[in-house]
Amino acid sequence: MTTPLHSIEIQISFGHCDAAGIVFYPNYFRWFDRCFHTFLLDRLGGHAGLCAQLGARGIGLMHVDADFRSPGTDGDRFVLEMGAPRWSGRSLTLPYTGRIGTRILVEGIETRGVFGERDGRMTALPVAPLREMIDAL
Amino acid sequence: MTTPLHSIEIQISFGHCDAAGIVFYPNYFRWFDRCFHTFLLDRLGGHAGLCAQLGARGIGLMHVDADFRSPGTDGDRFVLEMGAPRWSGRSLTLPYTGRIGTRILVEGIETRGVFGERDGRMTALPVAPLREMIDAL
Amino acid sequence: MTTPLHSIEIQISFGHCDAAGIVFYPNYFRWFDRCFHTFLLDRLGGHAGLCAQLGARGIGLMHVDADFRSPGTDGDRFVLEMGAPRWSGRSLTLPYTGRIGTRILVEGIETRGVFGERDGRMTALPVAPLREMIDAL
Amino acid sequence: MTTPLHSIEIQISFGHCDAAGIVFYPNYFRWFDRCFHTFLLDRLGGHAGLCAQLGARGIGLMHVDADFRSPGTDGDRFVLEMGAPRWSGRSLTLPYTGRIGTRILVEGIETRGVFGERDGRMTALPVAPLREMIDAL
Repeated sequence: MTTPLHSIEIQISFGHCDAAGIVFYPNYFRWFDRCFHTFLLDRLGGHAGLCAQLGARGIGLMHVDADFRSPGTDGDRFVLEMGAPRWSGRSLTLPYTGRIGTRILVEGIETRGVFGERDGRMTALPVAPLREMIDAL
Repeated sequence: MTTPLHSIEIQISFGHCDAAGIVFYPNYFRWFDRCFHTFLLDRLGGHAGLCAQLGARGIGLMHVDADFRSPGTDGDRFVLEMGAPRWSGRSLTLPYTGRIGTRILVEGIETRGVFGERDGRMTALPVAPLREMIDAL
Repeated sequence: MTTPLHSIEIQISFGHCDAAGIVFYPNYFRWFDRCFHTFLLDRLGGHAGLCAQLGARGIGLMHVDADFRSPGTDGDRFVLEMGAPRWSGRSLTLPYTGRIGTRILVEGIETRGVFGERDGRMTALPVAPLREMIDAL
Repeated sequence: MTTPLHSIEIQISFGHCDAAGIVFYPNYFRWFDRCFHTFLLDRLGGHAGLCAQLGARGIGLMHVDADFRSPGTDGDRFVLEMGAPRWSGRSLTLPYTGRIGTRILVEGIETRGVFGERDGRMTALPVAPLREMIDAL
């Protein structure tokens, strides 16, 4: 990842950790999701406003994966970076890297679609309108 | 609350909200807990180190309550303040207030005990040693 | 609590527990909320349908409190019972008890309001219509 | 997946859903994890006991991925099945499928390692001892 599109800082707290004393892994996805949504808030008016512009119901998940490289524990502060999306016709794929200095905690991707109702059913819409908005930033 | 003992800033994200579009209330308690634990990290060496000093297993919950004054939504940033503890023999009670400017989102308390094993069973220990440490800050 | 209005069984899992190996306390409120919502699903058509009937946006929280009597750990199965509501003009208070046999894990209450938009702002509506529906069960 | 190794039933509740009214996706991983841990509880003495037998600290995550096929909403009951593991020298990969009848909600995998301290550092141990225990079920 060269220049991240967006990043957030997370301080790992006691309540994020499991009985082994390390981050309970679903929390990493809460942080991926938060990174994406704070990007929307900072640059594109937030999820609700953006969906209204796009005629969509939500920018939801199609696929996610992650590799857990090293454990995070209570008190660790890490930076979670979101890179530039890769685009296909009806989805975008966002890369994430969480690190403390040079130590990587987690690397992963989210593939999201722009979902909306068309002809009475929920479907993945073309992402070109969203791509134009992000390319213009 | 005059001068808070500790405070954290929280940015509410999409994933904290429920289907009504407002914060799902158990999250407020995750933030109360995080406020207490970041206080321990900043001022008393963190929960694990502090427990080692106190001969304790954990500083856990006996009671909690909260009043939800106004709803928080995606993108809201609020300050959560923790006030000075009230002490009894085997517990301490911490007051919390979450607000955006003058608008209060949540007010509540946590009553915590210092739990440790004595004579083969887990019990609430006297809190005087913890009180001395906090009074000395 | 004599006859509970509703109850659910919860099996505590590894991921519900914190670094001290006991349930991370905000989870108890997720279970209170789930008990209330499964009651709505089983007896009153679910939250969304019920809100549509009541002209409401949500049946949300005003106050909550809980006492944590004994710790729950990985693998424990407990029953969470919700008792009959106490009613006031614009709120209802639901009592909860979580127990394993005669051992009580948690006792608490939720005070909820029926929130809806009236005259352009969100407000707590009279709960008499909901009371009639619950009394008629 | 032919015969699942283990399965759990999940009832989706209001609190699992986000502002779009569908399951907030990190919850699916809490359920993957719960499925694995209830398997350990039912068949292998639970995570803590099993780790003691294996001289390990935890059976933690190396990799996870999931495809979200269709949305889950408040009140949906689904079955989450865990299939037989695929084994490598220092990891096992568990396949999961969540479905309501023939409709698939989620498909994914968890790759886990058996982590323990050796020569003063945490490392992924050979999984052969765990494999023998699971093969013997």
